[in-house]
Amino acid sequence: MSNEMRLFSVTNERPLAQKISERLDVPLCEVDLQKFSDGEVKVNIGRSVRGMNCYVVQSMDANVNERIMEMLIMVDALKRASAASITLVIPYYGYSRQDRKARSREPITAKLIANLLQEAGATRLISVDLHAAQIQGFFNIPIDHVSAVPLLSNHLEENYSDEDVVVVAPDHSGVVRARRVADKLHAPIAILNRKPRPNEREISSVIGEVKGKLAIVVDDIIDTAYRATTSCDKLLEEGARKVVMCATHAVLAGGAAKRLNESRISEIVLTDSIDIPEGKLDDKLTMISISGLLAQAIRGVQENKSLHPLF
Amino acid sequence: MSNEMRLFSVTNERPLAQKISERLDVPLCEVDLQKFSDGEVKVNIGRSVRGMNCYVVQSMDANVNERIMEMLIMVDALKRASAASITLVIPYYGYSRQDRKARSREPITAKLIANLLQEAGATRLISVDLHAAQIQGFFNIPIDHVSAVPLLSNHLEENYSDEDVVVVAPDHSGVVRARRVADKLHAPIAILNRKPRPNEREISSVIGEVKGKLAIVVDDIIDTAYRATTSCDKLLEEGARKVVMCATHAVLAGGAAKRLNESRISEIVLTDSIDIPEGKLDDKLTMISISGLLAQAIRGVQENKSLHPLF
Amino acid sequence: MSNEMRLFSVTNERPLAQKISERLDVPLCEVDLQKFSDGEVKVNIGRSVRGMNCYVVQSMDANVNERIMEMLIMVDALKRASAASITLVIPYYGYSRQDRKARSREPITAKLIANLLQEAGATRLISVDLHAAQIQGFFNIPIDHVSAVPLLSNHLEENYSDEDVVVVAPDHSGVVRARRVADKLHAPIAILNRKPRPNEREISSVIGEVKGKLAIVVDDIIDTAYRATTSCDKLLEEGARKVVMCATHAVLAGGAAKRLNESRISEIVLTDSIDIPEGKLDDKLTMISISGLLAQAIRGVQENKSLHPLF
Amino acid sequence: MSNEMRLFSVTNERPLAQKISERLDVPLCEVDLQKFSDGEVKVNIGRSVRGMNCYVVQSMDANVNERIMEMLIMVDALKRASAASITLVIPYYGYSRQDRKARSREPITAKLIANLLQEAGATRLISVDLHAAQIQGFFNIPIDHVSAVPLLSNHLEENYSDEDVVVVAPDHSGVVRARRVADKLHAPIAILNRKPRPNEREISSVIGEVKGKLAIVVDDIIDTAYRATTSCDKLLEEGARKVVMCATHAVLAGGAAKRLNESRISEIVLTDSIDIPEGKLDDKLTMISISGLLAQAIRGVQENKSLHPLF
Amino acid sequence: MSNEMRLFSVTNERPLAQKISERLDVPLCEVDLQKFSDGEVKVNIGRSVRGMNCYVVQSMDANVNERIMEMLIMVDALKRASAASITLVIPYYGYSRQDRKARSREPITAKLIANLLQEAGATRLISVDLHAAQIQGFFNIPIDHVSAVPLLSNHLEENYSDEDVVVVAPDHSGVVRARRVADKLHAPIAILNRKPRPNEREISSVIGEVKGKLAIVVDDIIDTAYRATTSCDKLLEEGARKVVMCATHAVLAGGAAKRLNESRISEIVLTDSIDIPEGKLDDKLTMISISGLLAQAIRGVQENKSLHPLF
Amino acid sequence: MSNEMRLFSVTNERPLAQKISERLDVPLCEVDLQKFSDGEVKVNIGRSVRGMNCYVVQSMDANVNERIMEMLIMVDALKRASAASITLVIPYYGYSRQDRKARSREPITAKLIANLLQEAGATRLISVDLHAAQIQGFFNIPIDHVSAVPLLSNHLEENYSDEDVVVVAPDHSGVVRARRVADKLHAPIAILNRKPRPNEREISSVIGEVKGKLAIVVDDIIDTAYRATTSCDKLLEEGARKVVMCATHAVLAGGAAKRLNESRISEIVLTDSIDIPEGKLDDKLTMISISGLLAQAIRGVQENKSLHPLF
Repeated sequence: MSNEMRLFSVTNERPLAQKISERLDVPLCEVDLQKFSDGEVKVNIGRSVRGMNCYVVQSMDANVNERIMEMLIMVDALKRASAASITLVIPYYGYSRQDRKARSREPITAKLIANLLQEAGATRLISVDLHAAQIQGFFNIPIDHVSAVPLLSNHLEENYSDEDVVVVAPDHSGVVRARRVADKLHAPIAILNRKPRPNEREISSVIGEVKGKLAIVVDDIIDTAYRATTSCDKLLEEGARKVVMCATHAVLAGGAAKRLNESRISEIVLTDSIDIPEGKLDDKLTMISISGLLAQAIRGVQENKSLHPLF
Repeated sequence: MSNEMRLFSVTNERPLAQKISERLDVPLCEVDLQKFSDGEVKVNIGRSVRGMNCYVVQSMDANVNERIMEMLIMVDALKRASAASITLVIPYYGYSRQDRKARSREPITAKLIANLLQEAGATRLISVDLHAAQIQGFFNIPIDHVSAVPLLSNHLEENYSDEDVVVVAPDHSGVVRARRVADKLHAPIAILNRKPRPNEREISSVIGEVKGKLAIVVDDIIDTAYRATTSCDKLLEEGARKVVMCATHAVLAGGAAKRLNESRISEIVLTDSIDIPEGKLDDKLTMISISGLLAQAIRGVQENKSLHPLF
Repeated sequence: MSNEMRLFSVTNERPLAQKISERLDVPLCEVDLQKFSDGEVKVNIGRSVRGMNCYVVQSMDANVNERIMEMLIMVDALKRASAASITLVIPYYGYSRQDRKARSREPITAKLIANLLQEAGATRLISVDLHAAQIQGFFNIPIDHVSAVPLLSNHLEENYSDEDVVVVAPDHSGVVRARRVADKLHAPIAILNRKPRPNEREISSVIGEVKGKLAIVVDDIIDTAYRATTSCDKLLEEGARKVVMCATHAVLAGGAAKRLNESRISEIVLTDSIDIPEGKLDDKLTMISISGLLAQAIRGVQENKSLHPLF
Repeated sequence: MSNEMRLFSVTNERPLAQKISERLDVPLCEVDLQKFSDGEVKVNIGRSVRGMNCYVVQSMDANVNERIMEMLIMVDALKRASAASITLVIPYYGYSRQDRKARSREPITAKLIANLLQEAGATRLISVDLHAAQIQGFFNIPIDHVSAVPLLSNHLEENYSDEDVVVVAPDHSGVVRARRVADKLHAPIAILNRKPRPNEREISSVIGEVKGKLAIVVDDIIDTAYRATTSCDKLLEEGARKVVMCATHAVLAGGAAKRLNESRISEIVLTDSIDIPEGKLDDKLTMISISGLLAQAIRGVQENKSLHPLF
Repeated sequence: MSNEMRLFSVTNERPLAQKISERLDVPLCEVDLQKFSDGEVKVNIGRSVRGMNCYVVQSMDANVNERIMEMLIMVDALKRASAASITLVIPYYGYSRQDRKARSREPITAKLIANLLQEAGATRLISVDLHAAQIQGFFNIPIDHVSAVPLLSNHLEENYSDEDVVVVAPDHSGVVRARRVADKLHAPIAILNRKPRPNEREISSVIGEVKGKLAIVVDDIIDTAYRATTSCDKLLEEGARKVVMCATHAVLAGGAAKRLNESRISEIVLTDSIDIPEGKLDDKLTMISISGLLAQAIRGVQENKSLHPLF
Repeated sequence: MSNEMRLFSVTNERPLAQKISERLDVPLCEVDLQKFSDGEVKVNIGRSVRGMNCYVVQSMDANVNERIMEMLIMVDALKRASAASITLVIPYYGYSRQDRKARSREPITAKLIANLLQEAGATRLISVDLHAAQIQGFFNIPIDHVSAVPLLSNHLEENYSDEDVVVVAPDHSGVVRARRVADKLHAPIAILNRKPRPNEREISSVIGEVKGKLAIVVDDIIDTAYRATTSCDKLLEEGARKVVMCATHAVLAGGAAKRLNESRISEIVLTDSIDIPEGKLDDKLTMISISGLLAQAIRGVQENKSLHPLF
């Protein structure tokens, strides 16, 4: 792809897009996104995109439906304005936990979103730490699925390599993710045994040894933060010395920030895949930026370089 | 289609769906639509829909993006639950004014929505008084486009046939619609000459005679109500004796209700294509229900009867 | 698009394509289009098109079905010959008035044509003054919709700016178009009130002032010319001083030329979007060429320049 | 398919459709097909088709492009009018000889037509003696490909079984077809060796024995009739006693009828897959109707009976 | 779906299809599947399938590519023979472990197969215990995903409910599956900690208590059986009293049968989702038939009954 | 296409791909194609293909289903690895004789394969001497269909131009192919009259003169070689002096090699479109390489040069 590139953020003020722009040394192209009083969104793109490779940075957040519609409308505008390619950079892919039918007559919304983005005209997706790697297979367009786990692990290694660490999966389905961090830290793992739904906030037992250890709970998404805080409480109760929480995506919905701030978790390591407004979390927060990772991925796509090192 | 039918409303409490259900004597099927604190919507359908014709009533309103996403997710759930057909009943089709590129690099969102609904799995659309009849051509699935204009005209005829009426188009693009009502009332028409954007709230002149007449302003959508109130003021200024306002879709966004209540319009005739909460408009409001019209359309589809009389 | 370009006219002799070719300084590529006695058309393209951007100029005319089939066959040949892109330049888009279902069980042929052109392999459309702007939304491929109205308005302004002009819409649905010209000429508008179908040739009244004025009737298509001549007669009857007719597309079907020549219209301003054989219209005709407009649009597409100034 | 059926002929007066209607005892449904002076076609279907199986009989003829466009528009109208299925009954499939690229940069029009019919909404095709059986593979919808060869062979057997017959392929590509008839008549075959294009009207030699025999030339299409008449002349020159011509599809383009009437062919056996106006061919013509064959095929489709016996 | 049904097995002799046929009391329809010496497969279906609901039972096995091609060809034949619907019953969905890109430049073959089956014309899939539930989202057609885990759990409960059981996940990614069985048996779980690839046959540690217990190892697929036998050895080494192995799909590739027969596993509980030839496994084998489960699913689909109880 | 190119062979050792690589002076890119004991294939591509034109050489052979699946998986891997284009170079297109429904309820597998290759993501096909030229129309992507017949004819002309040659079609459907060679050699043709299936190995008569001549039998595929050897025997019986056999594709299935070696055919001229292991055929074999032809075609595609001379 030797075409010129254009970098966009759908909602203009996004700090992550700004940082990516700086790292790439490519300006964010102006987008006029109006929201009318009847709830309709209107997009007007400031400069010509004819024959250009367009990269649209937009993370989904706690207003996920608005974000998806804005993105779809943006893609339609770019397609009709004759963009050569439209790469969506969606650090946090919303609805990713609705990735299968758990009961009769449920949708598979993560797949629906994939179909909608492709139908609108997206030609490629860059995303970070998808809730299930299989979501890659929901798309027919190429996906560059990069991981923030090495960044998070590096931070943990630098700070806790001297300690007696156990890496903890907050429930059974998180074991593979915990294992990835544990391998990096050469630490054992433990698993929290949760009761079945709808009582999943209660933890019946801990599998593995945590007593006297620094417990690092590894998750992909922090949403309401109930899983984080109940994990912390149980681990301390079982004798863990200290609890550190780490996750890629900080949705922080419905009182999560307050809950985390008031918890006994000693450090919370998150990325900026979703913007965390300053002051929302207190000084327990360590923010690892994925802007470098995404800038590298975008540059790889634009210059047809292998993204192999980012996986 | 000799299959059994199921009637749904996406947001359960909708009064219009309830009325349609009563007229059809078919119960509204239970839908469990949860909204999580992270903004994600989860749909679970209460009863089996295998091999059934499903009718989903959902009007778009001032929260249009939420409404569209809910509808898409609902369609995905029905498709995966093996519905035989999925008919969307969308009395007010949002984004219908974004039906063409007015300037460079704009989307055509009304077409995008059409593509999304079809991609999700909708097999038919029933809609009322589309902003542009050409939106029918945005779809490849069959559409039943019914009109509330005869219902509105009937009401006007019954109440004002003795008076010296002029039917008024509130701007140039509304002339064809005004003509339709005028023909029914055997009345002349007049047109309000608005200044070009962005000063379209100012009316430079009136084409046609309004002095001493009862002016009936005909529109399709009342949104912010600025067009309604400026029309009223200008017509009274030009000597109209009284002003009646009539429209199919009552979006009533951003202070519109207050603006209408405080205006000198003597009667406002609207339909329930979008729910108007009780008390929102004062006693100037006359509400004409389209539930009978839609019930008839649904029955026609279900029983393979011609809908010819509803056009 | 840095690929080489090829310019084609399906029916070789088209004067418009020739003029575009001259303005672009790009030769028309030879196409061997044979028509056999069994009515079948065979296309053979003279030179290699591998990896090239192909531009096919073809206007629809009074032999519209032949023109469409030739175009579709041409697109198939180009696609199978490995063209990199296929841009159709269709100055007059036929069937554009069949853009919605007016009655039960009618087709939406303007949409059908859009689907057929895309299915055959067209990757972009350039068109002029579509009957309804919404036809843009019938396509999923990018469209460059350019307008001849500024060219026509310029001519009218140059010739009639000293006179007391009224711009006339020949029926209600043409008001928006008339308004566009009127704004340019700083003139008022009037509307001809036609009886409903099938008596639409009779005009019941004129809305607005025409007495003593130079009436400029603005239309998009002159087809049978009945609307043009009845407009002229009514306007003169109502006291207009002189009538000028102006339109973009000159289909001139079924005796239209004779009708115009014999009418009391004093000037007829048309474009060459459809070829008007020399001598068909008498010296009342003023022909404005859109070849420059289209050459500019093609160059913009080929060189990825914004076409913004042409809208 | 237990739905009701509707039978249509696009161009109302077609005698074949009438005969099929009689054999099926199902009336031809009224279609209002108007052709305007600007060449555009407008279709309006007389009765409701909601949820019905529609069968559209239309043969392509020497006005093939008009026929195809009419059919596509008809299919669009039926689809939008909510037909349950749309079966095209196209006895003679035009453009069937453009079924491969013979030279660079040619279209494959037979495939294009297949794509267009499917895109428009056709759900099934019934056709007779396709020029190449592989055209079945151009479609993804089911095809019922029936053959008139048994009907033609029966006639020949009844009339010429006592004679010393040779079945003749008029060129190399017709050998397989000739073989099918020869097997039925227990007769040997011969082949006419034509010069390569563009001199294919000259026959350089005959492979096989024809002297003193009744030569039955078997073809699929009689188009200009040059191949028929040059075959006859050569066979008589080589000593054949008498020449009979037999083919399924009588396009009879560009003077073909005159050429056949004036030839020394003693009998011409054709079907009514394309209408032959009375008096066009003189009394050498034997017309075998395929209406029974098609009625049987339609009934099989409608009643889900195997069409096996018709292949 | 009130259409008649037809039941097929692609490779005729399959015992599972035979059992399903008996339970449904619907005969297996004859299919002539020839394999030529050039490796090509030819399918001919014995009886008419027009307008019928076709159910094709085919499990993938150690000859997976042949099985997939046969199935695709079978679907093409059914589609072209006018089947009303084509439901694939694929108890074991091959390539299901290639469900995501684990490294750069890998395919997602499980998704590719999904696309191919849909492209060929399959309209529904019934499958059992997919390796990842997300594979449901690889399809746009409805899927009925039934589980054999209740059948397996019932057997284990009946036989081992008196014992001190621990349910063991043979690696981290199997924890969720093990949990499902453990919940049923009210037993704790343990996890085998395997080294990273390519040394995944070595188990570094066991998380959870196994000493003195009856260890039931739960897996979805037994392939080479290395994971089964290394699990058994490790568990006995760690003090487990006895080891039982249980899995849904018995691929048994490359010496797996010998390996299992020679192992110290005391019971191997498998289903017949893939045929296990008699005598292949010795008397440690307990075979649980899923024919009842699949017969119920097929009947549910055919009669539009909810399959809810089978999930 | 100014992108870089990558050349692949799916099954690494293919001699033809090696020769093409040498002629193009482009290395074969490494592909890691593993086959597991459960029959599944896993592909991993050695180097980045982002934005590159990929050419995949793979002939189908007597293990045709494995070859097709490998190719589809390879295409999926390339597509997901962001290849700019994927050109399949399939010298011998398997299943090409299943190109139409000969009987009820048969598939059209040649078309199915075309759909599968396109669905997987192939963007172009290069193939040699397709069994039926109409197979080109099974694809919507561009095809470069090159012919080895000139190469074969050249060889025959060089060696046998002094002799009294007759070119023989081994059955009726091969007449057009034989004619092509005969024209080149200025020789007459003869046809072998075979009995209808299933007795097609018996030849009832010869049409045309063969006595005393050198008979060159021309076929496209040698499969079981029964047609070749029965042709030879019949021709010698009818007095032919010597028999030469010539074909493009050497499938050589099920004892074909032995049969040919033991036959009285004096020379067998074949191409390397399918690899013939050394020593499989004795010294009667003349192998004509098509590597130059394919290298030229690939270069033409890569450099956007006309392939006209190769048709």
